[in-house]
Amino acid sequence: MNGFAERLFDACRRKESVVCVGLDPRAELLPPEHRPATGDPDAVAAAYESFGRDVIDIVAPSAAALKPQAAFFEALGPPGFAAYCRLCDAARERGLLVIADVKRGDIGSTAEAYAAAWLGPRGSRPPLADACTVNAWLGADGVKPFADAARAGGGGIFVLVKTSNPSSGEIQDLQLADGGTVCERMAALVRGWAQPPGPSGYGPVGAVVGATWPAHLRELRRALPESVILIPGYGAQGAAAADVADGFDADGLGAIVNASRSITFPWGRPERCPAAWREAIRDAATAMRAELNAALAARPR
Amino acid sequence: MNGFAERLFDACRRKESVVCVGLDPRAELLPPEHRPATGDPDAVAAAYESFGRDVIDIVAPSAAALKPQAAFFEALGPPGFAAYCRLCDAARERGLLVIADVKRGDIGSTAEAYAAAWLGPRGSRPPLADACTVNAWLGADGVKPFADAARAGGGGIFVLVKTSNPSSGEIQDLQLADGGTVCERMAALVRGWAQPPGPSGYGPVGAVVGATWPAHLRELRRALPESVILIPGYGAQGAAAADVADGFDADGLGAIVNASRSITFPWGRPERCPAAWREAIRDAATAMRAELNAALAARPR
Repeated sequence: MNGFAERLFDACRRKESVVCVGLDPRAELLPPEHRPATGDPDAVAAAYESFGRDVIDIVAPSAAALKPQAAFFEALGPPGFAAYCRLCDAARERGLLVIADVKRGDIGSTAEAYAAAWLGPRGSRPPLADACTVNAWLGADGVKPFADAARAGGGGIFVLVKTSNPSSGEIQDLQLADGGTVCERMAALVRGWAQPPGPSGYGPVGAVVGATWPAHLRELRRALPESVILIPGYGAQGAAAADVADGFDADGLGAIVNASRSITFPWGRPERCPAAWREAIRDAATAMRAELNAALAARPR
Repeated sequence: MNGFAERLFDACRRKESVVCVGLDPRAELLPPEHRPATGDPDAVAAAYESFGRDVIDIVAPSAAALKPQAAFFEALGPPGFAAYCRLCDAARERGLLVIADVKRGDIGSTAEAYAAAWLGPRGSRPPLADACTVNAWLGADGVKPFADAARAGGGGIFVLVKTSNPSSGEIQDLQLADGGTVCERMAALVRGWAQPPGPSGYGPVGAVVGATWPAHLRELRRALPESVILIPGYGAQGAAAADVADGFDADGLGAIVNASRSITFPWGRPERCPAAWREAIRDAATAMRAELNAALAARPR
């Protein structure tokens, strides 16, 4: 069985794309034909699912991966959680790798349970996701069970090293007495957990590094040569293609760039949703693919 | 509406108990009458729910709160998630405060969605939980939405400051260039987020500090005078009553101590489960209550 990195890079090459589409549905931004009639959780969950299935069909040719955000589904209770799981299955069936954005983190047998939830086989059915995001505040006890499950099942994890949000520095950028910063120390831990790498040179333990911090991205790319980097913060959060190109290796691989709202809701406001909203989503995804490919091609070799 | 701290302290006084029972179900440890016939997720979820309902009935008189661990339910997929939600409702109806152990953490609208999931009203129904655990690796952006939802709905949150597991020091105990450690800096952030406190002197933003680190507990009790401390790691993880007494204020309040396996599975191994397992659980909970009350009473005044 190929590892996550190998499967991801294969998808990137086949689709000529390093695009990951984030699915963060908001009821008020859905196209009118998908908008729920009521705020009832069953109705909203059904709307998220039908819209999500359309998004999957639209972006499958131009994106390597889908990153559905669990929080928006969890907020709807059991019908939301069930819709989330069905969308993961739908995306994988359509040839998209699924990165479950769940940011889970716990210890010992509890971490094993979370890892089983997202990366483990479900009886005779495949895992829900190809990879998931992991919060490593608890140290190795919280990460190893995920890394083990990933390695056993051809999956991957992305540890939050330097997140894209403004307050990420409150803990992550603190200077250490021994030199370096907290997120650099986290990167050193990630590098250990990523060993040994697979045939692509990359292991199953990747890192999240926000596109909003280009200097961190350059430095962490060098510090994490065996880790795929998931780069969020593109588009609506303000980063551009030139900012993220340094997150890639010399082959233009080793990273994937996520955009959420700018792809799935390019109209931004409910009243601006065009009748041709499917084309708007498709065009946003293909434009992002082209921008990233151009930025990668423009790098000095 | 009373805040979470006031409601918790009221329960502690009424029940003369600072015990929180952790519900971390494991299929293989269930009493025979609850053990699932197959490994099918529906069967296991039903078993966790029926056992959980029994645990709730048994410990309701002697525990102030129940801390159900989401991971074990999430591992079962949609039927597990639905069972978890029903158990939260059942515990609240039985007079136990529910601390959803979910360790969620994300930013902005995503954190708002998680906060809505666990602490927000569900249409005309009350929130799923009275409080939830939060991972603050992402800084204020990841915590404020939870704190706001807690304040608005009379709920609470517990931020992971110093966790009970052996590897917690890999990040949390790093020495900072400015002095102090990473978890002390986290505590300083928590103190800010806890303002203003409610009528009890405590605010809605509490802290998790593992019973396995008594020195940290003493120091963090002083550093966090407005935060309720959730102290895991009692019992099976090795800490004793004398270790945790320093986590409380002079009135014997301001903290709550969690034990999971040592209360719900005091038999430890499947073959040792007694016919009178209900009494074994009841006795484990009342013994823990008595141990903690004795340790609190024995403190110098």
